Amino acid sequence: MITVNAANKLIRNITYKRKEIFIPIEHASEEILAEDIIADRDFPPYDRVMMDGIAVKLQTSKKSIRYFIEGIQKPGKNQKTLKNPDNCLEVMTGAILPKNCNCVIPYECLDIVNNTARVKISYKPKTCDYIHKKGSDAKKNEKLIPIGETISPIHTAIAASVGKSKVKIFAKPQIAILGTGDELIPIANTPSTHQIRQSNIYSIESALKLNGFSCNRKFHSKDKKDLLKNKIYQLSQEFDVLIITGAVSMGKFDFIPGILKELKANIIVYKIKQRPGKPFLFARLHNKLIFALPGNPVSSLLCTLRYVLPFLLRTKGRAQFLPIKSAITPNKKLTLFIGAKKQESSKGYFIKPIYSHNSGDLISLKDADGFIEIPPSAKEFKPGSLVKFIPWKL
Amino acid sequence: MITVNAANKLIRNITYKRKEIFIPIEHASEEILAEDIIADRDFPPYDRVMMDGIAVKLQTSKKSIRYFIEGIQKPGKNQKTLKNPDNCLEVMTGAILPKNCNCVIPYECLDIVNNTARVKISYKPKTCDYIHKKGSDAKKNEKLIPIGETISPIHTAIAASVGKSKVKIFAKPQIAILGTGDELIPIANTPSTHQIRQSNIYSIESALKLNGFSCNRKFHSKDKKDLLKNKIYQLSQEFDVLIITGAVSMGKFDFIPGILKELKANIIVYKIKQRPGKPFLFARLHNKLIFALPGNPVSSLLCTLRYVLPFLLRTKGRAQFLPIKSAITPNKKLTLFIGAKKQESSKGYFIKPIYSHNSGDLISLKDADGFIEIPPSAKEFKPGSLVKFIPWKL
Repeated sequence: MITVNAANKLIRNITYKRKEIFIPIEHASEEILAEDIIADRDFPPYDRVMMDGIAVKLQTSKKSIRYFIEGIQKPGKNQKTLKNPDNCLEVMTGAILPKNCNCVIPYECLDIVNNTARVKISYKPKTCDYIHKKGSDAKKNEKLIPIGETISPIHTAIAASVGKSKVKIFAKPQIAILGTGDELIPIANTPSTHQIRQSNIYSIESALKLNGFSCNRKFHSKDKKDLLKNKIYQLSQEFDVLIITGAVSMGKFDFIPGILKELKANIIVYKIKQRPGKPFLFARLHNKLIFALPGNPVSSLLCTLRYVLPFLLRTKGRAQFLPIKSAITPNKKLTLFIGAKKQESSKGYFIKPIYSHNSGDLISLKDADGFIEIPPSAKEFKPGSLVKFIPWKL
Repeated sequence: MITVNAANKLIRNITYKRKEIFIPIEHASEEILAEDIIADRDFPPYDRVMMDGIAVKLQTSKKSIRYFIEGIQKPGKNQKTLKNPDNCLEVMTGAILPKNCNCVIPYECLDIVNNTARVKISYKPKTCDYIHKKGSDAKKNEKLIPIGETISPIHTAIAASVGKSKVKIFAKPQIAILGTGDELIPIANTPSTHQIRQSNIYSIESALKLNGFSCNRKFHSKDKKDLLKNKIYQLSQEFDVLIITGAVSMGKFDFIPGILKELKANIIVYKIKQRPGKPFLFARLHNKLIFALPGNPVSSLLCTLRYVLPFLLRTKGRAQFLPIKSAITPNKKLTLFIGAKKQESSKGYFIKPIYSHNSGDLISLKDADGFIEIPPSAKEFKPGSLVKFIPWKL
């Protein structure tokens, strides 16, 4: 058995190659960019009018406040030319600045009578006012967003602006979840006294979805060794990541560790000094990754949040540490994971621990916002102590 | 013109009716529950074995440490009966506790030789050990999750356990985005000098998606009044929420305010004392809601985050306030929204303001994590002052 931190390190050391795929820019939010985004022309590509009003040529020699309106420069139309420097052209936001102009004066600062614009006395226009100069934000061929960035709404707009209707991203892994347990029946069925409905495969899928991943297929297998072995072999061929729940502990029908040995999987982690979730297993089989989580519902969800998702997200030490409301007695040898509600006070957020009766008790955790992690210690954690908070959405 | 807070209040006062729909439980993560989830039987439904090991009948009269193994109670099988109270039955996690048993002793505490289990000297079993008692977490007909809850992975597991393969949720609104502007061309096209590519409709869709909403359809219209009026009328029939970008300010072709008046829309907000995004408009038309955002790319994204998404999310005052790294000079009359990068130091998170050249400058904001909101004030905001942070993902 190893510690939580040692297990985490072993898991995080394993990398997996993500395919590079193209997807429509509007679906790329929060994906990881697999190419540099380059300016295909200057940003902005022309001297762009930034306010509705008039474009004029300010001249140091002459301070005019009255401009006859020669015409109008509409957005999306070819560049016009101001013919007489004493006149003006009406201009609209987004339009190209007409030739021979060096200033835009907004309507708010004008009175227009008889096709003549008069600048309000209080307003002093300056050269370059309300002109978004060609190339002032970026030059043609400049790298605008580097490979590896997580795509934000601003990136979406930038990529669209340079003509990327599709962007290259690192594809998320194909994930399957395999439930085990002869006592488990499909949700829609009516259980006999000794049966319960499948819930782990759904809660794990829910946690994946909340964190931006999909479960591509869900399966359930009876606790028969040959069946299970064939299924695991088949799924490890087909999917990048296989999450198994149940059959990983010491029971007579806990076939997973044995099967993985027979399949010559490289077992990287098996059993962690923690409660709940001790019999967690992580292995590599033909470059595919297998997480085998204990079958108790609290354990399987905790292990998804603590090990599977950080591996998938490749997040680096972004843990939240928050003060606890009430004292917690740690275990001397095991890391404890306890349900947690994040609450707000005038002094900021704090954590209210929520204890479940045991790792089969989902109900007590219905108000939880995640878990807290209490490392092994001989000393009590006093109220106000900072503890690591693991939210549903990491 | 009204203040940011006044506008926000007017917008938040408008409610919209959400349809109630059923969706598969595995897709319901983060949706709002539209029904109570009730226990269809006790939780757990039977005395459930919690560890792999043996089930015995502890008797005060006799302290036995050796138990002959009568048989095995597998998960998913009918309840067996321990025939001889001096013997034991092997049991596996998840199985129903056999009749005549009151304690489970884990394998870890046993040595098994010749079909006889011997309890390790150091281990002292107690009545009820490792038995998850029928009904100990919840009783049949108990309300487990109330209507209105945001569905977490734990809720998913609970709903699955009570047989909800589908759950009733409040459906998200059908949303359309309508771009305007004759200077804008489709992403995949090659622009002429005076043209730029559409980006607002994509960045808005990206921000919606990041926050759990979909844009059901995207459109673009030329700046022709009749075209635009017909389009707005048609879309307001078809969708719950219409987000328009551009054509809302003072330009000659800014037809939106006029069109909405002609359509007899109830204009609730028009123009806000803020920079950027002043000409923001919010209206109601036949119980459908219309957000008309200024066309500059930074303005349209800011207004999506500050007004559209809080309206859709119905979030209540969950704002984050974080200290700023460098001094900021507020405007005396307008609320300023400034790009912001959230950075981490040993003292926690702080905000580095990111200034864009103007509301057309996307490039400067490429490293931003959102915006900060600086209310009007005559006094400088010193480094360390707390300001409201508006992240891409609210």
